[in-house]
Amino acid sequence: MGTAKADSIGQYLLKRLYEAGVKHIFGVPGDYVLGFYDLMAKSPIQHVGTTREDTAAFAADGYARCRGLGALAVTYGVGALNTVNAVAGAYAESSPVIVISGAPGVREQKEDPMIHHRFGPFTFQREIFDRITCAAVTLDDPIIAFRQIDRVIAAARHSCKPVYIELPRDLVMAEGHPVPTEPPEEPASDEAALSEAVAETAELMSKSVSPTVLAGVELHRRGLQDALVELVERARLPVAATLTGKSVIAERHPAYLGVYEGAMSSENARYMVEQSDLLLMLGVTLNDIDTGVYTARLDPHRIVRAAQNEVVIRYHRYPRVTLSDFVLSLARTVKAKHETFPAPVTTPEATEFPMPERPMTIARLIERLDRALTPDMIVVSDVGDCLFAAIDLRVYERSEFLSSAFYTTMGFAVPAALGAQIARPDHRALILVGDGAFQMTGTELSTHIRFGLAPIVVVFNNCGYSTERYILDGPFNDISCWNFDRLGELFGPLNGYDAPDEESFEKALVEALANHATPSIINVHISRDDSSSAMRRLAEVLKSRVRG
Amino acid sequence: MGTAKADSIGQYLLKRLYEAGVKHIFGVPGDYVLGFYDLMAKSPIQHVGTTREDTAAFAADGYARCRGLGALAVTYGVGALNTVNAVAGAYAESSPVIVISGAPGVREQKEDPMIHHRFGPFTFQREIFDRITCAAVTLDDPIIAFRQIDRVIAAARHSCKPVYIELPRDLVMAEGHPVPTEPPEEPASDEAALSEAVAETAELMSKSVSPTVLAGVELHRRGLQDALVELVERARLPVAATLTGKSVIAERHPAYLGVYEGAMSSENARYMVEQSDLLLMLGVTLNDIDTGVYTARLDPHRIVRAAQNEVVIRYHRYPRVTLSDFVLSLARTVKAKHETFPAPVTTPEATEFPMPERPMTIARLIERLDRALTPDMIVVSDVGDCLFAAIDLRVYERSEFLSSAFYTTMGFAVPAALGAQIARPDHRALILVGDGAFQMTGTELSTHIRFGLAPIVVVFNNCGYSTERYILDGPFNDISCWNFDRLGELFGPLNGYDAPDEESFEKALVEALANHATPSIINVHISRDDSSSAMRRLAEVLKSRVRG
Repeated sequence: MGTAKADSIGQYLLKRLYEAGVKHIFGVPGDYVLGFYDLMAKSPIQHVGTTREDTAAFAADGYARCRGLGALAVTYGVGALNTVNAVAGAYAESSPVIVISGAPGVREQKEDPMIHHRFGPFTFQREIFDRITCAAVTLDDPIIAFRQIDRVIAAARHSCKPVYIELPRDLVMAEGHPVPTEPPEEPASDEAALSEAVAETAELMSKSVSPTVLAGVELHRRGLQDALVELVERARLPVAATLTGKSVIAERHPAYLGVYEGAMSSENARYMVEQSDLLLMLGVTLNDIDTGVYTARLDPHRIVRAAQNEVVIRYHRYPRVTLSDFVLSLARTVKAKHETFPAPVTTPEATEFPMPERPMTIARLIERLDRALTPDMIVVSDVGDCLFAAIDLRVYERSEFLSSAFYTTMGFAVPAALGAQIARPDHRALILVGDGAFQMTGTELSTHIRFGLAPIVVVFNNCGYSTERYILDGPFNDISCWNFDRLGELFGPLNGYDAPDEESFEKALVEALANHATPSIINVHISRDDSSSAMRRLAEVLKSRVRG
Repeated sequence: MGTAKADSIGQYLLKRLYEAGVKHIFGVPGDYVLGFYDLMAKSPIQHVGTTREDTAAFAADGYARCRGLGALAVTYGVGALNTVNAVAGAYAESSPVIVISGAPGVREQKEDPMIHHRFGPFTFQREIFDRITCAAVTLDDPIIAFRQIDRVIAAARHSCKPVYIELPRDLVMAEGHPVPTEPPEEPASDEAALSEAVAETAELMSKSVSPTVLAGVELHRRGLQDALVELVERARLPVAATLTGKSVIAERHPAYLGVYEGAMSSENARYMVEQSDLLLMLGVTLNDIDTGVYTARLDPHRIVRAAQNEVVIRYHRYPRVTLSDFVLSLARTVKAKHETFPAPVTTPEATEFPMPERPMTIARLIERLDRALTPDMIVVSDVGDCLFAAIDLRVYERSEFLSSAFYTTMGFAVPAALGAQIARPDHRALILVGDGAFQMTGTELSTHIRFGLAPIVVVFNNCGYSTERYILDGPFNDISCWNFDRLGELFGPLNGYDAPDEESFEKALVEALANHATPSIINVHISRDDSSSAMRRLAEVLKSRVRG
C-alpha cells in the first residue's frame, strides 16, 4: 500500500553521518536547531551536550582525530558564531569536523524579518564559515540537498578539514530527492612520476650513510601510521616526529628519536636529524612551531620531502604524487642497511621520586608522568609551556598524543579530551593544562563526569600566562589564582588534589591512577621562574642570535 | 634640540581612545598583541584581564552601553575569532565596541609563512569582521593609519555599532603621519521635512484621546533619554518600553506603563498600547522579541513611528528626518492635555515574604527582588526565562537594565556586568542568570573579585534549558546540576548561598545586600515546571492560535 517515502533532509543527514562513523554529535540545543535535535534523539546517534558551543567544536575535533570524522550541531548565530575559533583551529590543524547549524526557515527568511539571533543578512553566517571550512553549504533546496550532504561529508574526509552545513528549520522534515551515490573522488598519482620518485629515493637511500625520517602530522591525518612503521622497520630507519606530528609513531618504538623542532628539540633528536645525510620528511608542515620558531637547520640538498600532492627531492619536484602512494610504495621498495635501528637508545635515568620537601618543577613532573604512562592512556595537552614540556613524554601507542600544537588555541585540552575519550572508550585521558587555559574551558569537566569518564587532569599552575611572560612580561600576564583542586565542590564527583611538592604530588597521582570511576584533578604549583627544558633550549639559541 | 617625534600608531590609537572616553580596555594578551599591551601598560588606560576573549567582548559591550564606547584588545586568530559571537551580538544590539586585534607583522606576512594562530589567508580575519562590524580596517600603512583610527572611532560612535582595528605587530611602534582632524560627520535632517513631520504629529496628538508612547532601544543608544522625559512630562503622555528598550525611562516614573511586547506584556501595558488611538513609536526596532513573537497588535493607521533616519506617519514617510531631531523638536512643540499622567498607578500588592516552608517560584522571586532594588543598582539579565521574568522588575533610574534582549546570546550577563560596573563604579550589579547561561561564562566572576566588585548573582536553577523545554522538550534540554553556591571554593572571596525556599532566600538576599565588599551568589532552586508570567501569557495566545 502506498509508495515508500524518501528520507527527510534531517533524516538523511543523520543516516549518512552514522554510516560515515559519526556515532556521537556534540552541541548545545537552541530553537533554530531543535527540530534536528528531536530527530537526533530518535536516531542511533547519541547527543553529547556540552556547556558551551566552542567546547562542542573542540570535542568534535578530538573525536575526529581519533575516529576520522566528528560532528557538532548548534543553533543559528549565537551558537554557530561561538564555534568560529575552534573550527578555524580544526582547519589549521587538519581535523575533519562537520559543523551543523540550524537556521531560520526558508519561508521565514523571505520576509527579511528582524528575528532573534540575527546579526546581518542571512547569508553572512555561511560567508564566515566559507573562510574556515573547505566546503560550506545551505540545505535550502530539497532537490539537491542529498547530493550536497554526500559531497560535503566526502570533502571533509578527503581534505581532512572542517565543513559547514546550514539547515533551515522548515526543511528538517522536508522530503529530499534521492540521488545516485557518487564514487568518492580520490586524488590519484601519476604512475610514471610515482615510480620515478620512489626509485630515485631508494637509490639515494642505498647510498646514504645516515638516512633518517622526520614524520609529520599529515601521516596521521591520512591514516598512514602503519605504512610509516612498515617503512622504518623494513629499512631500519630512525624516525623523529614534529611536534604537531607527535605520536604519529608509538614513542616507545626502538626507531623513535623523539620530537624534532629546531632548537627546541632534545639534543639527540636534533643531532640525528640535522646531521643526517638524507632526511625523509614525510607529511611535515613547515610551520613556525614545528621548526622551533625557524631555528631548524635543514639543508634542502639532503632532503626528500613528501607532501600531500607532491614529492620534492633536493631541488626538483614531482607533482601529482600523493603522500599516501609515495609512502606505501617506498615501504615496499626499500631494503634494510643495518641489523638494528641506529638510534641510540636513550633510557632516562631512573631517579628517586618523590624526594622529601622538594617543591614541584616542570622537569620532575614530566619525568614522573612519563613513568606513569600506560598503553591505555591518551595524552591531551593544552598549549603553552605544558605543551613544550610534553615533548619529553613518550606515549605508548600511536596517535595517543593530541594537541592544538600549530594553531595553539588555549582551552583546547579539556573539551578535546571529552571527544577523544568518547571516541575511544577503552582509553582514559591524561590532560596537561596550564592555569590560564583551564580558566577558559576547564569547567567542561562537568560533561566528562556526566558521561562517566575518568580523566586525570594535571594543572600546571603558576598564576599567569607563562609563555607570554617569557616573550614580554608585564602585569597583564598575571591572572587570578584558582583552587583547582576544589573544583569538585562546584560539581562532582571529582577528586581534587593540591600538590605543592613532590610527596603530595606522588600521593595524588597514585590515587588518581587507581581511580577509574571519576575524574581527578591535580593542582601542581609551579614557580613563576620555572620552565620546560624545550623553552630554555630555544631561549639559548635566540639569545645567542641577538648577541650575534 | 631635535624635532618633535610624532606618535607611534599604537600610541595614537591609545590616545584617541582615551580622549573618546575609553578608560579601560578588556582582553587577554597573546604574542601578536603583546607590544600593544606593553604600550597600554604605560598609558593612562587600564587593562582589565578577563579569563577568555568572548567575555572580554561582552564586558566591553556592557561598558559601551554605560559609557558610549567600549574596547577590547586580543591576539590574532585564537583571540579575535573567539569574540565573533559576542561582537555580532554587539552589532545586533547596537553597542559601539572597538575590537583591536594584534596581527603578524607586515614584514612577516610578506613571505606567507605558516605561523601559529594562522588559519587561512591573512585577510580572512578582517573579512570575517567585515560582516559583524560597521567598519573594519588594517593599520598596515603609517601614512593613513591615524586617519583610519579617527574614522573608525567616529563610525563606532555615530553608528552605535562595533568596529574592527587590526594592528600588525611590527607597526605598533611605527611613527604615524599626523592628519588634520575631520569634523565628525553627523547625519542632518531635511529641515522642511522635519518641521512638517513634527507639525503633523502635534496636530494628531491634539486630536487624540489616548496618545501613548512606545519607547525603544534606539533612544538609549542615541542618548535621547532626557528628551524622552521632556516629551512625556510636557505632554503628560503615558509611556511603555519595548523589552530591548527596557529602562530607557526610569521605571518608577509616573508615566511608565511597563514593558510592551505583544502577548507577553503585562495586561495594563498591552491594553494602553494596543487601545491607544495614537501610538508614538520612538526608536523601536520591530524584532520578534519586542513584538512578543509577532503577537503585537499594532494598527499602522494609528501609528507615528520615528526610526533612525525617517519618520513614518500612518502610511506616508518622511525620509531624512533623524530620530534625535524629531524627538527633540516634538518635545519642544507639544502641549499637555491632562493635569496628570493618565497611566493607572499599579502598585504591586505588598505580600508577606518569606512564607515558611514555601519553595521558591519565579513570580515570588521577582516580586521580592523588585522590592530590594535601590537606585544604585544596575540589573543585568542573561537570556531565557530570567529575562522574561525581569520584565516585571521596575528599576529606579534610566539605563539600569542591560541584556542581550534581541540577539539573545546566553552567557552575556556575568561578563557584561563586569564591564558595566567598571564603567559605573558608583553602581553595583544585580545579575539574573539561568543555570545553563552561568555554566557558559559564570566563572568570569573571578575577574569581578579581582577588581573589587560586589555584584549579587541570582541563579535561576532548574537544571536545564527552560525556554527550549517550553518549545520542544527532550533529554537534550537537561544539563548537569552545579552547586553554584559553592563556587567560592574554586575562587574567592565570594559568598555563596543555597536557596531552595523563601526563608533561605530571604536570609541570603539580606546578607548579600549588606555585603558591599565581595560578590554574592544565590543558588535559587526552581521547579522544572515553573515559568514566568510573561512566558505563560505568550503560551496562552499561541495555544489559542493553534486551536484556531
